[in-house]
Amino acid sequence: MRNPHSNGNLRKLQADGGGEATEENGFADGVILGLDGGATSTVCVCVPFFPFGNCFPEPLPILGRAVAGCTNRNSVGETAARDSLEQVISEALVQSGSDKSDVRGVCLGVSGVNHPSDQEKIENWIRDIFPSHVKVFVQNDAIVALASGTMGKLHGCVLIAGTGCIAYGFDEDGKEARASGGGPILGDWGSGYGIAAQALTAVIRAHDGRGPQTMLTSTIIKALGLSSPDELIGWTYADPSWARIAALVPQVVSCAEAGDEISDKILVDAAEDLARSVKAVVQRLGLCGEDGTASFPVVMVGGVLNANQKWDIGKEVSKRINRYFPGAQTIIPKVEPAVGAALLAMNFLSS
Amino acid sequence: MRNPHSNGNLRKLQADGGGEATEENGFADGVILGLDGGATSTVCVCVPFFPFGNCFPEPLPILGRAVAGCTNRNSVGETAARDSLEQVISEALVQSGSDKSDVRGVCLGVSGVNHPSDQEKIENWIRDIFPSHVKVFVQNDAIVALASGTMGKLHGCVLIAGTGCIAYGFDEDGKEARASGGGPILGDWGSGYGIAAQALTAVIRAHDGRGPQTMLTSTIIKALGLSSPDELIGWTYADPSWARIAALVPQVVSCAEAGDEISDKILVDAAEDLARSVKAVVQRLGLCGEDGTASFPVVMVGGVLNANQKWDIGKEVSKRINRYFPGAQTIIPKVEPAVGAALLAMNFLSS
Repeated sequence: MRNPHSNGNLRKLQADGGGEATEENGFADGVILGLDGGATSTVCVCVPFFPFGNCFPEPLPILGRAVAGCTNRNSVGETAARDSLEQVISEALVQSGSDKSDVRGVCLGVSGVNHPSDQEKIENWIRDIFPSHVKVFVQNDAIVALASGTMGKLHGCVLIAGTGCIAYGFDEDGKEARASGGGPILGDWGSGYGIAAQALTAVIRAHDGRGPQTMLTSTIIKALGLSSPDELIGWTYADPSWARIAALVPQVVSCAEAGDEISDKILVDAAEDLARSVKAVVQRLGLCGEDGTASFPVVMVGGVLNANQKWDIGKEVSKRINRYFPGAQTIIPKVEPAVGAALLAMNFLSS
Repeated sequence: MRNPHSNGNLRKLQADGGGEATEENGFADGVILGLDGGATSTVCVCVPFFPFGNCFPEPLPILGRAVAGCTNRNSVGETAARDSLEQVISEALVQSGSDKSDVRGVCLGVSGVNHPSDQEKIENWIRDIFPSHVKVFVQNDAIVALASGTMGKLHGCVLIAGTGCIAYGFDEDGKEARASGGGPILGDWGSGYGIAAQALTAVIRAHDGRGPQTMLTSTIIKALGLSSPDELIGWTYADPSWARIAALVPQVVSCAEAGDEISDKILVDAAEDLARSVKAVVQRLGLCGEDGTASFPVVMVGGVLNANQKWDIGKEVSKRINRYFPGAQTIIPKVEPAVGAALLAMNFLSS
């Protein structure tokens, strides 16, 4: 789901005999590595460097692509994180027929990089792998997601809604703003976790006699292999990880599609919450211009927004964003986050 | 806070030279041990056994009282839990001048005892300490809390609102029902955690530009020693324990007392949520009778209900319960949970 395009490109380039960064095939300016450091895996893509800013072919040729384990040192420890990082870079370079000396720049997008010290530490790991002239950039995953929708340009707003949610944006002067993204305790109700937690709450309320009956009860109980709503308490206490809760979003969507009013309200509220996060960022940055009608991109990323179901949360959010800002252009990225990271590196190197 | 009465009784009995279970001082029928196994400590009280059910002096004489560490094996492990249990029992008996052979019954109230296997395990630990004729009862802490307000009688409803919240009740036939108590993921919004999490959410929303400004921002930031609402995200991620979050309830109350509308709404909503939990239990058990006006006790326990502030959450909950059920008698227990456990044991032994 995260990489609908690059494999195709890769295969095409390999079939053409392309893929090596040589003067013959036009990649004489070297290559760029883009990395996406996700919660469970790390993706690295190798693309040719196009030195003239946002002037490059679409789709961008992918010379190599590799996947390794998680590179978040908070999750897997420093040694494992560094090993995965070196492995995924090395594999992507081998696939592309390039070596370290061809690399012009590297950009890694990773969640939880908010403190300069975190950023510096990971930047230094990557610098250790390459010759000293290679430019290294480590960015918050939201910034990389924005770049994946704007083809590398840091302007506009990105809304990510997967297990968690965050809205992040930049104006033309590089000023940034964010909204949400604080996790469940701080009320990210539009996230996958938030939607599923509301659904579980509705089941318990119906069971207690505190709320109306809902189709969610039988649907969720069946999906979890439980025999009664009472068992939900034990189920949540057994492992309260956010992703495990968020995995129930498809059940909420299917109940809403089947006409369950409680589920429908949960999804409508989530869509409104997400749209308001975008609104807060847009207003703080003035992206909509003085009269509120200026055009700007809103990149929409994550399983909650891009599930493509009949009850389409992403469309509902877009509709609400456009009600606030008629000039907002909602975009679903055509490339995966690792390519966004590569585009961002290209942008940084050209500017 | 949890033991406003028993120390006084204990001192008085000791000063009187009383405290030993002998025929001379009227405790010839032996003694009862009541234990409250809390999250951080365990309290054990030793009281005289009065064999005629609910016929005993008020206040009940406390012959001995001891405090030890946590006896929840899920928190501290089995060995430490058993050691604390033996220690606290032994100290309470020594204080009372009794020994194991004087004990008629033991009742332990403990949170998280919902499965028969858990209950049996702890019952067996206690049985190992005593001769085989001693009756041992292990009960959910909600049941013991109810007994602390009804002087041992299992009839009516108890509402506990501390870090978490739960409503629990029994009808005259021993049929039981509960509402809430599922933890934060399942929407216990009337709990201390729920109140504080709503307050933190309001601070973040105001800071993001998604919600109205509130006095909670400066109050909470100051209380936590932070310099900006941005730092709240790091603060919650650093340790998301429920009790740490719930400790912010006094700040919400003080803001509401100072006229902050957001804080006031959070507390009103919490009070309504708590009252609805009681309503659900009362209706399922039919405690209010067919015409809805029958008299029944509602025991109110926990820091959220009994904080005695100017903005009195407990009073607000009582008012709402009485709006639903004019016959509901709200009671704040005069004895601590360990005494409730002892009264419960007395009830079980007499019936």
